[in-house]
Amino acid sequence: MRVLGIDPGLTRCGVGVVEGQLGRPLTLVDVNVVRTSASVPVPERLVTIERAVDAWIEEHRPDVVAIERVFARSDVSTVMGTAQASGIAMVVAARRGITVALHTPSEVKAAVSGSGRADKAQVGAMVTRILRLDAMPKPADAADALALAITHIWRGGAQQRLDAATAAGFGSTAPNRYAAAVAAHGRQGMSGRKQR
Amino acid sequence: MRVLGIDPGLTRCGVGVVEGQLGRPLTLVDVNVVRTSASVPVPERLVTIERAVDAWIEEHRPDVVAIERVFARSDVSTVMGTAQASGIAMVVAARRGITVALHTPSEVKAAVSGSGRADKAQVGAMVTRILRLDAMPKPADAADALALAITHIWRGGAQQRLDAATAAGFGSTAPNRYAAAVAAHGRQGMSGRKQR
Repeated sequence: MRVLGIDPGLTRCGVGVVEGQLGRPLTLVDVNVVRTSASVPVPERLVTIERAVDAWIEEHRPDVVAIERVFARSDVSTVMGTAQASGIAMVVAARRGITVALHTPSEVKAAVSGSGRADKAQVGAMVTRILRLDAMPKPADAADALALAITHIWRGGAQQRLDAATAAGFGSTAPNRYAAAVAAHGRQGMSGRKQR
Repeated sequence: MRVLGIDPGLTRCGVGVVEGQLGRPLTLVDVNVVRTSASVPVPERLVTIERAVDAWIEEHRPDVVAIERVFARSDVSTVMGTAQASGIAMVVAARRGITVALHTPSEVKAAVSGSGRADKAQVGAMVTRILRLDAMPKPADAADALALAITHIWRGGAQQRLDAATAAGFGSTAPNRYAAAVAAHGRQGMSGRKQR
């Protein structure tokens, strides 16, 4: 499974592609940050983001686009731009028929670090470890985009298998595979992880 | 000048086209509401809005797209969808090279009714009167879209003329024309109108 993670933002929009599957080591395919200038009108900034996300999908052909779910209670000064950028990312993926998955910040933190309250540095450190990178991806938006992609492969993939297994009458299969994957990646503190 | 007004929303997105110029009677060209179902995933709903707005621009060829400016302090339950829908509308216009203008709800209320605190019914009644319609456009989203278009022709147009006049050394020309247009449309309470 190849997942394009997107940490939406008007000034900095993180984009990261991760390939792999549950229980196997994951691989970084590409990561970057799309930047737009605050001196440019918002409609043009959104068009820049639209074109960049479209180009990333065209180049990397992800199976799923995983986007951070934005909440109205987030930082008021940036939340509108973040919501608009996330809407653009959703449209670009959906009009190509690619599945869009939304994960909340606490789901992402819990998936990669074992704690829904992990800080940016902890998330960055775990992304570096999980993808076996030489250095932490920077800025934080880049690491967050990769964390979203990792979360989808682990959590979304597990959820899909759980759904499939439950439908087939083998309800216990998916969680075990998920636990195995978690163990394979050396994560701690799973008992505190919030399950859907 | 032909303006497409858009009252952005995920469930109901008002679209209305008004043609005319400052100081002349304005004409309704078309008005409708794009609806998407809450039972459909958000990315697909946004694609429906994208296609609808694109089709309206293609059909009506507006000079300007006027969109309601969304604030984070708005109703929390709908503000994210509203922000996403407004972002989609901006992108659709901007990638066609059409000017996007944003007007706040209080600017729209003040422009069409003379009071920034007018309620939906007052705005609807003034839109009906300004465009000489037989009945009030419904739902409110449709009337609001027309109000945005009217606002742009009166306020945006006035602002552009003011800018041009100021640049040319005739600072008093545009406001007078604006006042004349307002008088021609029989509005009251202009002294309370907030000027940019």
